[in-house]
Amino acid sequence: MDRLTIIKVGGKVVEEPESLNALLDQFQRISGNKLLVHGGGRTATVIAEKLGIETQMVDGRRITDAKTLEVVTMVYGGLVNKRIVAGLQARGINAVGLTGADFNLIKAHKRPIKDIDYGFVGDVDDVNVSELRLLINENVVPVVAPLTHDAKGQLLNTNADTIASELATELANYFKVYLFFCFEKKGVLLNPDDDSSVIYDLNLQQFNEYKAEGIISAGMIPKLENSFRAKMKGVQEILITNPENIITGRGTRII
Amino acid sequence: MDRLTIIKVGGKVVEEPESLNALLDQFQRISGNKLLVHGGGRTATVIAEKLGIETQMVDGRRITDAKTLEVVTMVYGGLVNKRIVAGLQARGINAVGLTGADFNLIKAHKRPIKDIDYGFVGDVDDVNVSELRLLINENVVPVVAPLTHDAKGQLLNTNADTIASELATELANYFKVYLFFCFEKKGVLLNPDDDSSVIYDLNLQQFNEYKAEGIISAGMIPKLENSFRAKMKGVQEILITNPENIITGRGTRII
Repeated sequence: MDRLTIIKVGGKVVEEPESLNALLDQFQRISGNKLLVHGGGRTATVIAEKLGIETQMVDGRRITDAKTLEVVTMVYGGLVNKRIVAGLQARGINAVGLTGADFNLIKAHKRPIKDIDYGFVGDVDDVNVSELRLLINENVVPVVAPLTHDAKGQLLNTNADTIASELATELANYFKVYLFFCFEKKGVLLNPDDDSSVIYDLNLQQFNEYKAEGIISAGMIPKLENSFRAKMKGVQEILITNPENIITGRGTRII
Repeated sequence: MDRLTIIKVGGKVVEEPESLNALLDQFQRISGNKLLVHGGGRTATVIAEKLGIETQMVDGRRITDAKTLEVVTMVYGGLVNKRIVAGLQARGINAVGLTGADFNLIKAHKRPIKDIDYGFVGDVDDVNVSELRLLINENVVPVVAPLTHDAKGQLLNTNADTIASELATELANYFKVYLFFCFEKKGVLLNPDDDSSVIYDLNLQQFNEYKAEGIISAGMIPKLENSFRAKMKGVQEILITNPENIITGRGTRII
């Protein structure tokens, strides 16, 4: 099977011109098939504020009412996505920007209301990679925004980490998938105040112990749970690191 | 050669849920290969206003400063484009939303400053349809937003009529192209106040006469000039009409 590198980048990295350029330079150096999944939450919050729309977060997740859905559709699907695509084309990489609605790539359903009404947030049902495979085999690089649809005309907001692990899991049927979750830190830290306390190898048992002891921060838990699930479903390698270490391969490896 | 129908729709039609749904129902009825090019100017103006960005138009063209470019990237590339894609997927049409940056589809250069500085407005240099052809042959329906790029990382704002005729002209090398410009009227009118005064067949000589006599409105002239150019470059049929007449084929035919 051919190799496919999937990079998920969130946070400031994709939202400031300088760090975005540095990321795209790193991304350009990756050989072989590749795919980028991005966020854009900070910009969405800024644009929402300018439009007089209040941002509400619960456990780091955005409550997505109809107005907020318009904002994330504009920011993730338009502004952030197309800037990345134009930046990659400038580097000679034939990128195409997509959401989960394009090619019916990711079908989801609106999250049922339990304790919290998340609004237009989508939980993934199906991933359909037929056109994606065709394009990857033509050396096209997909750039995926964290939006899905319900196949009845409704766009939905879906967490970018989830998008990346769902795509990685499905594409692992056709490629040897290397999945990198990039963020500001060098990896998962034993001590959040000490950047040198990176856990280099992490297995499920250790993760459960660290989680029970409260060593791993709340924000990391869904990312890691997604990672272990993807690893068990056949993703070749999963690394949690910063953009600078995409090439060196240093960071927290899920084993 | 296979048939390919290209529909360009601008104005209110794509920007209000009811008329958009009616348009997508009509679009669904078109048999064979198809492609949609859309505008979104009214929404861009509304969002710009809410963001405190002043809209300046010269002869119906938007002056696109850096802030306005952000707005059109969000609105054309994100909001309007992805709503159309989700609406088509709901109708079982496998749509993909694109800008001119995706697949390096349309390369342009920033319009040189003469009398007027249009800002980040792109004049088209190259159209590259290789991935588009691949996808059309897989029954994918491209939905194209009026944005281009300069291949150096800069997105640019380009008139949707121009995008439609450039794509039609290039795709005419591979398909029998039927190009429909859809707007509110039933066609080009002899008398702008009389909706029944549609000119059904229009050749270049008549167009030049009507233009000289001031019968054809200023706003129609670039659309018609684009049409005659496309017709001369091998587009099979060009019709100017409203969405209701896509199927009947009534309207102003360029001959």
